[in-house]
Amino acid sequence: MTKNPWPVPQPELSPDTHPALAAAARAASRAYQQARAAHTRAELREEVAGGADGTPTMRVDAIVEEAIAEAASSAGVNLLSEEAGFVDNGSAATLVVDPVDGSANAALGVPLSCFAGALVLDDQPVEALTVWFDTGRAWSARAGEPTPYRTSGRTVLKGASVCLMRPKRGTEDAWMRVANAADRIRVLCTTCLETVLVAEGSVDAFADPGSDTHRLMDLIAALVTVPAAGGALLDLHGRPLTFDPDLTRRWSGIAAATPALADALITTILG
Amino acid sequence: MTKNPWPVPQPELSPDTHPALAAAARAASRAYQQARAAHTRAELREEVAGGADGTPTMRVDAIVEEAIAEAASSAGVNLLSEEAGFVDNGSAATLVVDPVDGSANAALGVPLSCFAGALVLDDQPVEALTVWFDTGRAWSARAGEPTPYRTSGRTVLKGASVCLMRPKRGTEDAWMRVANAADRIRVLCTTCLETVLVAEGSVDAFADPGSDTHRLMDLIAALVTVPAAGGALLDLHGRPLTFDPDLTRRWSGIAAATPALADALITTILG
Repeated sequence: MTKNPWPVPQPELSPDTHPALAAAARAASRAYQQARAAHTRAELREEVAGGADGTPTMRVDAIVEEAIAEAASSAGVNLLSEEAGFVDNGSAATLVVDPVDGSANAALGVPLSCFAGALVLDDQPVEALTVWFDTGRAWSARAGEPTPYRTSGRTVLKGASVCLMRPKRGTEDAWMRVANAADRIRVLCTTCLETVLVAEGSVDAFADPGSDTHRLMDLIAALVTVPAAGGALLDLHGRPLTFDPDLTRRWSGIAAATPALADALITTILG
Repeated sequence: MTKNPWPVPQPELSPDTHPALAAAARAASRAYQQARAAHTRAELREEVAGGADGTPTMRVDAIVEEAIAEAASSAGVNLLSEEAGFVDNGSAATLVVDPVDGSANAALGVPLSCFAGALVLDDQPVEALTVWFDTGRAWSARAGEPTPYRTSGRTVLKGASVCLMRPKRGTEDAWMRVANAADRIRVLCTTCLETVLVAEGSVDAFADPGSDTHRLMDLIAALVTVPAAGGALLDLHGRPLTFDPDLTRRWSGIAAATPALADALITTILG
């Protein structure tokens, strides 16, 4: 297995990005670039620890999370992340981050992975940032403020382009129902990037068809970004997405251009 | 529906790329950039003609193909392309191109689409070039010469990462057999980009699970590139991939890191 030769540029951030979010994103891109230069694909994919979220941590995740933890500490904010869990730096502000969303893509070299995080004040997410590592493209959003980019506005599944998580044992039928009802289907294996594609109107929706795969940090950036762009971010079973340092909690996230399209997806998945 | 605001950079080409292929790729990137700036997503997606290949042509395809046709004419080579069909410029050399592979992605704004083409001398493809529009990343290959990038070398489906075309009516069972046998599944909806990901070792294989979707220009760049990188490019049913200006012909392309992995995929798909 070879190294991935492609560069990871620095993120293209808006100047009014919160300094702690900006520092974390910059540290993440730099660390991922260094990780690609230092390690083969096989080494990046290797499981090096069991994370605080109860799932194994790949080397690429560990390297990028360590850089983010340093950035959070320097910025004087707390951190909630998958391997480290909750790191209390004595602040009312907490960065909730997925250091590398799409870890398998990031390790293998599929150019679809990102940094995603939100700044939480007390228990309210107030600002989100998602950075696509391979291009440096960044999507910012603030809770309750409209974004310059907008969702497609689509309301029905017929004719829609939908990103889905891959089918797993037990979700095959729901998966195929959505695939047959929608016009176009994609499986990119990076929830955070797929949900910003919903926010910017490039796809109409994203769904986990019932596998309960998502942790808080897989959805928290979308929870701010998708509604700010005019869309909806929900759990398949209506469970509220609330800030909770207990990383064993899981959801099935649905992001859609409109609340009506989210409802149509949920109805189709639940059959 | 809004315009896609992201830039399309010029391709990063090796200086020894054949001038006709290089000119076509540069023209394609420039035309796609201009098309994004001039048209909304809905306009780019609109069907403006029936192509020589028997399928509808979107506006984005027509705009990019026109720019490529001018480049081919200036370079003094023939062109075989999806809408135009065979354009005889009186040369022994023919550019066989897919102006925009992943047309729906390109129109909607999903950042996964590419230029792909091969230079054919008489009836033999001798050089291929694939350019990922959103990043400018380019993959060159010459028939019979090893490339600097290599496939993953994987030989078995268990543990593999596989890109699949989306399931269609009649291919659902074969699709799900592959999804359950492989470790990771992706559906990027851009055959030419997915096959160069096989060539560079970022995924282990790509397959059309029997829908006979591929035309010659969807596979001809991979036909040079994947074997030059150590892999195999085959048709599901063993039909030879030969240069033929009859664009109504179809194949089900299989690209794999090794001939053994291609065989395993074919066996699994045919059930």
